[in-house]
Amino acid sequence: MAASRFIATLVLSLLIFLSGSTATQRKTTRGRPRQPCKRMVFYFHDILYNGQNAENATSAIVGAPAWGNRTILAGQNHFGNIVVFDDPITLDNNLHSVPIGRAQGFYLYDRKDYFTAWLGFSAFFNSTQHRGTITFAGADPLNKTRDISVIGGTGDFFMARGIATLMTDAFEGEVYFRLHVDVKLFECW
Amino acid sequence: MAASRFIATLVLSLLIFLSGSTATQRKTTRGRPRQPCKRMVFYFHDILYNGQNAENATSAIVGAPAWGNRTILAGQNHFGNIVVFDDPITLDNNLHSVPIGRAQGFYLYDRKDYFTAWLGFSAFFNSTQHRGTITFAGADPLNKTRDISVIGGTGDFFMARGIATLMTDAFEGEVYFRLHVDVKLFECW
Amino acid sequence: MAASRFIATLVLSLLIFLSGSTATQRKTTRGRPRQPCKRMVFYFHDILYNGQNAENATSAIVGAPAWGNRTILAGQNHFGNIVVFDDPITLDNNLHSVPIGRAQGFYLYDRKDYFTAWLGFSAFFNSTQHRGTITFAGADPLNKTRDISVIGGTGDFFMARGIATLMTDAFEGEVYFRLHVDVKLFECW
Repeated sequence: MAASRFIATLVLSLLIFLSGSTATQRKTTRGRPRQPCKRMVFYFHDILYNGQNAENATSAIVGAPAWGNRTILAGQNHFGNIVVFDDPITLDNNLHSVPIGRAQGFYLYDRKDYFTAWLGFSAFFNSTQHRGTITFAGADPLNKTRDISVIGGTGDFFMARGIATLMTDAFEGEVYFRLHVDVKLFECW
Repeated sequence: MAASRFIATLVLSLLIFLSGSTATQRKTTRGRPRQPCKRMVFYFHDILYNGQNAENATSAIVGAPAWGNRTILAGQNHFGNIVVFDDPITLDNNLHSVPIGRAQGFYLYDRKDYFTAWLGFSAFFNSTQHRGTITFAGADPLNKTRDISVIGGTGDFFMARGIATLMTDAFEGEVYFRLHVDVKLFECW
Repeated sequence: MAASRFIATLVLSLLIFLSGSTATQRKTTRGRPRQPCKRMVFYFHDILYNGQNAENATSAIVGAPAWGNRTILAGQNHFGNIVVFDDPITLDNNLHSVPIGRAQGFYLYDRKDYFTAWLGFSAFFNSTQHRGTITFAGADPLNKTRDISVIGGTGDFFMARGIATLMTDAFEGEVYFRLHVDVKLFECW
């Protein structure tokens, strides 16, 4: 009987401990291991309309401050320019590779004294490999690497949350840039 | 004592198993049943300003590419147009029904070769039935049905997450469209 | 042996109960105590470009309806104006205090019959005290106090979710306003 009582006590303590950690799990979870449940790496390619590349352009200036226009990015580090884009997503850094999806949405430049941006867009996939969307939002300080948030997903990425680490992989003047995107999901359903 | 030892072993195994499944719950949860914890179905009605309907219009073009203007949606599938809206939400498909809320935010057209859009908006409720907001974001490929993400909520929809299935229920030229919105929340607080 | 069997039954019942409550935890969690896991209070200051304050302005009109322009907020409660901002964040209500971060993103006015707005922005921190971003989105009915959603975070605010209660602390005509922001995170990692 003593052994039984000992086991009962042990079990209840463990249950309470376990139950407690479950209950507070959402609230304070420092120390939780930060292993992504899903990871995807891809590139996207942005070719900005400049008045002469209507055929190839994948993005266009659609908003500008009073001192700007919609063909040339504004002075003061493009502050106030809003750009809408539909950019091909590729697995490697070659603009001409077969796209595996499209990055669709907008970015805006939001600082006068140096380059920073804010992004709202979705990666849209519709192939045998991936079907669904991942939606991103966040400040882009245009450092060497920077993180934005994954705020939702649909289809294969149903209810996704996480972060994406962005790196400008290449740029050519103000017409072309290529982003390296490392998506790390920490909530997968 | 043999029985006690057996129970102790059993219990510890179960605890470890349970504890393990709890710990990884956020990370890999395939197989989790996808039953919404809350569901809402409604319509919203968008009447786009076209230069002649200032009284009735619920939305207006506020951004356009260099080749467009703010009275007529641009060529190339409206690529680059940003539209701000404040649309009545109704329970049935009748534009003249008493609104139960407002859908407020923006959409933009983001593809040159066919229609696709990107949405950022909130459903705003302030009645005895519902009080609070549900915020949506995501790519809208304008298929027959398509899913966007529910990225947050306040009030009655505090901390909501989920998806919303959109269906264009009707449209009249480029002035009016009606969306059927089926909101399925999978995180409710 | 009777005692052992009793313990086994007890333990299994508890395990099932606990396992059950774990499984449904995400879906229906009414009654969960709403204690933030992190809280931050700050102010941000918006000085809108009006054609004469290029030096001091922290924001600019970049989108407007057909009846508006980008120097003066449009009639009809500014319906359709999109404003891009890069506003200093301070701990107290003094515009000239040392900023602890920047609020960067956009707001748009989305109602013709009175003032309402929709916000998408990030609070960007890069100091010894805080490093990372908190991203916000949602309808702002411009009541005395109103809640918007925290939809994500990076760095110190990795995976953050919650709400932010906004209060217009002061405004001067259509050029300056100051927001009191009370950020309450309910998911912290």
